[in-house]
Amino acid sequence: MAEGSTLTEAPRVLRVALLGGGTVGSQVARILLDDAEALAARAGARLELVGIAVRNVDAPRDVELPRELYTTDAESLVASADLVIELMGGIEPARTHIIAALRRGASVVTGNKALLAQDGATLFDEADAHGAELNFEAAVAGAIPIIRPIRESLSGDRITRVLGIVNGTTNFILDAMDTTGAQFEDVLAEAQRLGYAEADPTADVEGLDAAAKAAILASLAFHTRVTLEDVRCEGITGVTASDIAAAQDAGMTIKLLAIAELVPAGAAGDGVSVRVHPTLLPAKHPLAAVRGAYNAVFVEAENAGALMFYGAGAGGAPTASAIMGDVVTTARRIIAGSPGRAGTTRTLPIVGLESVTTSYSIGLEVADEPGVLSRVAQVFADHGVSIETMRQKLEQKIGRGEVLPAAEEGAHGAGRAELRFVTHRASEAALAATVADIKNLDVVESVTSVLRVEGI
Amino acid sequence: MAEGSTLTEAPRVLRVALLGGGTVGSQVARILLDDAEALAARAGARLELVGIAVRNVDAPRDVELPRELYTTDAESLVASADLVIELMGGIEPARTHIIAALRRGASVVTGNKALLAQDGATLFDEADAHGAELNFEAAVAGAIPIIRPIRESLSGDRITRVLGIVNGTTNFILDAMDTTGAQFEDVLAEAQRLGYAEADPTADVEGLDAAAKAAILASLAFHTRVTLEDVRCEGITGVTASDIAAAQDAGMTIKLLAIAELVPAGAAGDGVSVRVHPTLLPAKHPLAAVRGAYNAVFVEAENAGALMFYGAGAGGAPTASAIMGDVVTTARRIIAGSPGRAGTTRTLPIVGLESVTTSYSIGLEVADEPGVLSRVAQVFADHGVSIETMRQKLEQKIGRGEVLPAAEEGAHGAGRAELRFVTHRASEAALAATVADIKNLDVVESVTSVLRVEGI
Repeated sequence: MAEGSTLTEAPRVLRVALLGGGTVGSQVARILLDDAEALAARAGARLELVGIAVRNVDAPRDVELPRELYTTDAESLVASADLVIELMGGIEPARTHIIAALRRGASVVTGNKALLAQDGATLFDEADAHGAELNFEAAVAGAIPIIRPIRESLSGDRITRVLGIVNGTTNFILDAMDTTGAQFEDVLAEAQRLGYAEADPTADVEGLDAAAKAAILASLAFHTRVTLEDVRCEGITGVTASDIAAAQDAGMTIKLLAIAELVPAGAAGDGVSVRVHPTLLPAKHPLAAVRGAYNAVFVEAENAGALMFYGAGAGGAPTASAIMGDVVTTARRIIAGSPGRAGTTRTLPIVGLESVTTSYSIGLEVADEPGVLSRVAQVFADHGVSIETMRQKLEQKIGRGEVLPAAEEGAHGAGRAELRFVTHRASEAALAATVADIKNLDVVESVTSVLRVEGI
Repeated sequence: MAEGSTLTEAPRVLRVALLGGGTVGSQVARILLDDAEALAARAGARLELVGIAVRNVDAPRDVELPRELYTTDAESLVASADLVIELMGGIEPARTHIIAALRRGASVVTGNKALLAQDGATLFDEADAHGAELNFEAAVAGAIPIIRPIRESLSGDRITRVLGIVNGTTNFILDAMDTTGAQFEDVLAEAQRLGYAEADPTADVEGLDAAAKAAILASLAFHTRVTLEDVRCEGITGVTASDIAAAQDAGMTIKLLAIAELVPAGAAGDGVSVRVHPTLLPAKHPLAAVRGAYNAVFVEAENAGALMFYGAGAGGAPTASAIMGDVVTTARRIIAGSPGRAGTTRTLPIVGLESVTTSYSIGLEVADEPGVLSRVAQVFADHGVSIETMRQKLEQKIGRGEVLPAAEEGAHGAGRAELRFVTHRASEAALAATVADIKNLDVVESVTSVLRVEGI
C-alpha cells in the first residue's frame, strides 16, 4: 500500500514573493502581514512576505505597507521565493516570471485570467514537469470557490454543462436595465459614474473578459484545452430596453452567460462548445436571481445534478480572499512535501455554434393585419424550426405587459404589431435561414431581436 | 526553498475497499466500475474496487454488481486496502473500521455525519498521527462542494458566519407549507407518501440531522472542535400554517437553518454559537429562493463577503458524486506521496443562546380594543427590546395579507386581533422576559409564536 509519511512538526518558514501592488496585491499583502499568526497555524508554516515587485516604488497605494517591501526587481524576488503570487496581470512580463518560478520548483498562485486563457497549457506543463503547483482560484468569479470544486470536488463526476455569470459589470448593467427599463447607453453611463464600469468598458461589455473565464472553466470542466480563440463571443451592446421588456412579459430575464457544454461531435465522440452571449433565462432559474455586480456559476454534472456557486465576483478584498485560499493550500502541500497534480488532459474537438442547438427568442415588427401570423409561422415550419410560444403586442394600443393571446383574433387597425416567438431547440443554421426568409416577407417590417434562451 | 519532487509516471493501482452496499454505496461501486478509465486518468492511478462489505451478501440490491465483490468480512477488506470508503453509517462498527484503516496509514473517505459530529476530533488526530487523509465532503449537503471550499478555498480568510439549509426533508415540508398554506401534519404525510420523508421522520423534523451537520460546519469554519452536544436544536414541528402566512404578509419565508457564528465571548476573545431552528428570512435573501428538497449553504467571510453554495442535498447519485470527488482527490495525494493535513485547530468556547442576539418575530392574539398596542409596546420598552415593525390583523374581518398600518386607529369591535412584531437584535434573556410579561397582560389572549429572524 501507499506509505504515509509522518508530517514534520518543526516550525517552517516559506518565503512568499508578491508581484504587483495594485488593489488586490495591497489587500493580499495586508492579510499576509496582519493575519500572520492565524495563517501560520492553518498553513503549517510561517508565510514570510519577502517583497512586493512594482513598476514604481514611490507610487501612492491604497494600503499603507512597510516601504522597504517594495522593489522594482521582480526577477531577483522570484529567484529567492518558495511561493510566488502573481498579480501583475497581462501577458508579459507575468508569463516570464511565472515560468521562471515554476522551473525553480517554486509554486505559483495567480489571478491572471488573460494569461491562463491564452497560454494556460504551457504553464501547467511547466508546473507538472518541475513538481510545482499552479493555482488560480481568483482568475474566475473573484471570491467564489469554483476552480477548486471543479478540479477536485467534481473530479469523480462527469460535468456536462457550465453556465456562468462571470462578469460583474455586465450583470450590473443588465440588472439595472431590468429594474429601471432604461436603455443600455444610459445605464452604462451610470455604471461608469458609480465605478462599476471602466472608462473604456469594451473588455466587459463586448464579453471579452467573460470569454477568457469561459475558456478557463471549459478547460477544467472537460479536462481539455480551450483557449480564448475557441470561444464564440457576443457582448451586451445590442441588448435593448425593448428586449428586456419583452423578456419580462414572458417571465424571463436577460443575462450575459459564459456557456461551456459537452456536445456530440459525430463519430469522434464528445466535443466542446464554448460561447458567451446574452441569454434569456426563466425568472425561476437560480441564475436569474443573481443581481447587481454579483457572479454565479451553475454547473450540471451527471451524478451531482445541478449545483450553483454564488458570491462577489470582483473587488480587492474578495479577490484577495481567493488568492489567500490558494496560498494557504499550496503552502500546506509544500510543507507536506509534494504539490498536487491536475490529472491528465485530453483534447476534445471544439464545436462551432452550427452544431449546437438552442432555443431562440425572435422579435418581429409586422403589419397589424389578418394572416400575418400564419405566413410567419409557415416560414418556421419550412425550416423545421418548431415554435414553443408566441406573444403579440399591438403597438401604441395596449401597455407593456399586456398581451393578446391569439394574433389572428380581435380587431385589426392600420398600425403595426410586435410578435415575439420562442422556438424549441434548433440549430443556428436553421435559425439563420428562418430569420433570413422572415425578413423577406412583405408583411414584416423588421426583425427587432434574435436572442438565445437557456434553462427552459 | 522547498524541494519539489518529480512525479512518478508509472501506472499505479490503488486498492479501494467499500464498506456499505446501500443506495449510495451501490452508486459509488457502479461509478468505480463503469468509469474506471476516466477515473484512472484523473487520479493518476487505477482505482481497483477490491470488495464491498455488507451485512448480508444475498440481500437484494438497487444496482447489479458482480456477486464476488460482496463480503461480510469488513475487517479483512480494510486490512488489504490503500483507500477505504465508509458508507455504513452510524457509530459502530464504522468507527472501529475507520480507525483501523487510518492506523495502517490508509486514507478514508466517509459520508458519516453522525460519527463525525460525535467523534470527529479523534478521527482527525488518528489521520494526522499516521499520515493518512480523512475526507468527508458527502457528510454535509450531499453533492454540494462545501467542506473543501471551507477547508481550502477560504483557508486564507476569516469566516464569521455560516447559515445552511442542510436538510432536504424539512426544506421540502416548509416549502410545501409556504406554497399550499397547508398545516405541518398534512404536508408531512404527503412528503412521506412521496418518499421525501422517512416513516419515522424524527431525525429530520426535530432538527437532529441538521444539528450534526451544523457541528461539522462550525468545526471547519472556525478551526475549533464542536460536537453534537454543543448544538442548540429546535425542529419544525411547531411551525404552523399561520406562522407561514404571517411570514408571507411580512415579505418573508421560514427556513430551518443551521447557524454557526463567531460571537464575542468576553475577555476570552471569540466564542462560537451553533444552533438549528426555524428562522424567518426576507424573501430577497439568497437562501429564501432555495425550494423543494434542495440544500444551500450561505457563508460570510471577512474578505470574501457573502458566498452561497447550492445543489442537491441527498440522493444516491449526488452523494456518490461527492464521495467520488474525495476518492479521486485523495488518490492523487497518495500517488503524489503525501496526504494533506487539515491545519491546526484551536478550542473556542461554545457560547449559549443567552449571549447571542438575534431579531425575533412574535405573534400575539389580543383583545381588539383601544390601548392594547400601547400596553404591549410598553412591555418591550421595559426590557430594552426595540421594535422594528408591527403588523395588525383583525380576525375574520379582513383577509390574509391585508394589514392595518396602525393598531390604534379605526373602529374596534368585540373580536380579537392578531399582532405580529419584529424586533431589532435582542438577547434571548431579554426576549424571554418580554414574552413572559406580555403573557401576563390581561388584554393578551395568547402568544401564538416566537420565531428568530436572520438576514434583515
